[in-house]
Amino acid sequence: MSPARISGETFRFPVRVYYEDTDAAGIVYYANYLRYMERARTEWLSSLGFDLADVERVLGIVFVVHRVEIDFRLPARLGERLEATLTLLELHRARMIALQDVRREHQTLTHARVTLACLNRASWRPARIPADLHARLENLI
Amino acid sequence: MSPARISGETFRFPVRVYYEDTDAAGIVYYANYLRYMERARTEWLSSLGFDLADVERVLGIVFVVHRVEIDFRLPARLGERLEATLTLLELHRARMIALQDVRREHQTLTHARVTLACLNRASWRPARIPADLHARLENLI
Amino acid sequence: MSPARISGETFRFPVRVYYEDTDAAGIVYYANYLRYMERARTEWLSSLGFDLADVERVLGIVFVVHRVEIDFRLPARLGERLEATLTLLELHRARMIALQDVRREHQTLTHARVTLACLNRASWRPARIPADLHARLENLI
Amino acid sequence: MSPARISGETFRFPVRVYYEDTDAAGIVYYANYLRYMERARTEWLSSLGFDLADVERVLGIVFVVHRVEIDFRLPARLGERLEATLTLLELHRARMIALQDVRREHQTLTHARVTLACLNRASWRPARIPADLHARLENLI
Repeated sequence: MSPARISGETFRFPVRVYYEDTDAAGIVYYANYLRYMERARTEWLSSLGFDLADVERVLGIVFVVHRVEIDFRLPARLGERLEATLTLLELHRARMIALQDVRREHQTLTHARVTLACLNRASWRPARIPADLHARLENLI
Repeated sequence: MSPARISGETFRFPVRVYYEDTDAAGIVYYANYLRYMERARTEWLSSLGFDLADVERVLGIVFVVHRVEIDFRLPARLGERLEATLTLLELHRARMIALQDVRREHQTLTHARVTLACLNRASWRPARIPADLHARLENLI
Repeated sequence: MSPARISGETFRFPVRVYYEDTDAAGIVYYANYLRYMERARTEWLSSLGFDLADVERVLGIVFVVHRVEIDFRLPARLGERLEATLTLLELHRARMIALQDVRREHQTLTHARVTLACLNRASWRPARIPADLHARLENLI
Repeated sequence: MSPARISGETFRFPVRVYYEDTDAAGIVYYANYLRYMERARTEWLSSLGFDLADVERVLGIVFVVHRVEIDFRLPARLGERLEATLTLLELHRARMIALQDVRREHQTLTHARVTLACLNRASWRPARIPADLHARLENLI
């Protein structure tokens, strides 16, 4: 469970820019990159066999974003096909840190470092990441 | 409880257009008028002494939109100060119909007819509108 | 260009329900079905060879929703895999009408009738649907 | 124009939590705090006599978020009345840094450090903050 080994595995999820994502400046509205990032996290966990809706209902835990550091480097525009990527950076008992980019081919449009906490849904207090998920995640870093 | 009397009372709630509301066509994104309309409904019920969060938690009911007919007549743009209005049109045991406009001064930008249903939160089946709320609503039409 | 022939062709586009789409009632927020519907329209036109961003930039026209009649029949929940469908119902010179559903397998969750107008982007006045697009659309109804 | 003096002036803007802001976890969806923060920035500039829509149209510049560092400390729930605050922290020729919190009475729910860049709308390259706005901002730090 030693943290901070750089992952060799990066998860990639396609997103397309629709009108709903853009604003009057003609570009993707800044908060909407966080929506793309959430989709990528959900699909990443899903690809590991953990559906968030089930996890929440069955295990009574919820993953919550504790901190985001995000750089907005280049704008995206209507109709573009982008990729939201996720690389697990650190894994702890009740939290993890992921690097989450949004890319257009080989350009990084936004680059983010996201801290996720595992919480008990009822008490809203830190909870251990479920053992089987933790084991799967350990293999990624 | 006879339906369909035209209300003499129209509730008005101010909304301002921010970047989040607009899209790359330079106008308010069509789905966002429904967000303005929901804010007006919430504030209207709040003005009658019924906070949706409390109603849901204490009474176990939830108001759900069953049908919307909406005309998009004129676009709204960044920075504009608009008004979301609500006029109760019909009141029944477990549902009501409201006219909800979004206006800029004397121009109607969007005009909608919204059917709201009162549901039991657990069963998701129709439930009576709470008696005291129903009494308050009767006075409006 | 005779209107109102029922289409034999229905376009289908997958959507998945993420946290961003849901609200505190535990279901997809009502306005977000209109976002799903817009994605389906964009992908439908894209499948016909017309990218909205190009159409707008090159031809100076924009497609705008003029009217929506939508029934919300059944709720969708976090993590569900849905389908947004589009069937062209009527085709006119400067507008068209589409039936747009959101479905879960064989259940129709929302059913909408959407009127789209083709506008000149500069004048915001009705404009003819481009001839080549119109020809492609005629084949659909 | 010396940067990094702590402001004595904090701008405050009220926000209320509607269904549109919440998600299936029952709390405000994380990206939506960035929407609250944008409203506060817009109203703050408006309070200084600079309407973003005018600034963009007349001066050909646009303010873009370059970086956000945000801590999500406590959740907000449906119906709550919050306050989005803004304190100017640093002022440079073509960018500024603001502290932007979302608070419930004396609790800080989210705390963010936001870097804003002034760009030429056509070239998307850094542009000087307009002199009269810069003069107004200098008085704030």
